[in-house]
Amino acid sequence: MPVTLINSFVVPASQSDAFLETWTKTARAIEKAPGFISATLHRALHADAKFSFVNVALWESEELYRAAFAQSPVPRGGVQPEAYPALYDVAVHVKAP
Amino acid sequence: MPVTLINSFVVPASQSDAFLETWTKTARAIEKAPGFISATLHRALHADAKFSFVNVALWESEELYRAAFAQSPVPRGGVQPEAYPALYDVAVHVKAP
Repeated sequence: MPVTLINSFVVPASQSDAFLETWTKTARAIEKAPGFISATLHRALHADAKFSFVNVALWESEELYRAAFAQSPVPRGGVQPEAYPALYDVAVHVKAP
Repeated sequence: MPVTLINSFVVPASQSDAFLETWTKTARAIEKAPGFISATLHRALHADAKFSFVNVALWESEELYRAAFAQSPVPRGGVQPEAYPALYDVAVHVKAP
């Protein structure tokens, strides 16, 4: 059963462009890893959001997610924002009737 | 273009069940609102996650999202966790090649 990685980032507005560049570079390095399904980087619509970026990614399993980051050191740029990564499963799903 | 509401909740383990109940009740009250598309409540796999629950929901527009919460007061239970709601659009989407 897939797991969802949700990573919330605190990025000052002045660093948004650099963050986007670093994140995209990291995603390109990870996308070929076994178990990677998809990643969606969300950008806050308004400046008062605590988390200006949130990545919601799907992995085939926790083991494959951890292996991907353990085996290939992720390229890092100058932007190292405060981040809150954690793995989740789906507790409740609601659709419009 | 749809917007994504991401709401991260800090819920003590002892309140998880009560939170789930309150959240589901709220979702049922909101699901018929114009503009609501879907909501997915994620639960952290491990206790060390700062945000033990994260809701990722889709709305048809920011206006309809705001109208839904302005017009119908949301039922609230005893659990009022620390929460970080914000609206997002998709900046980057990456899929496994």
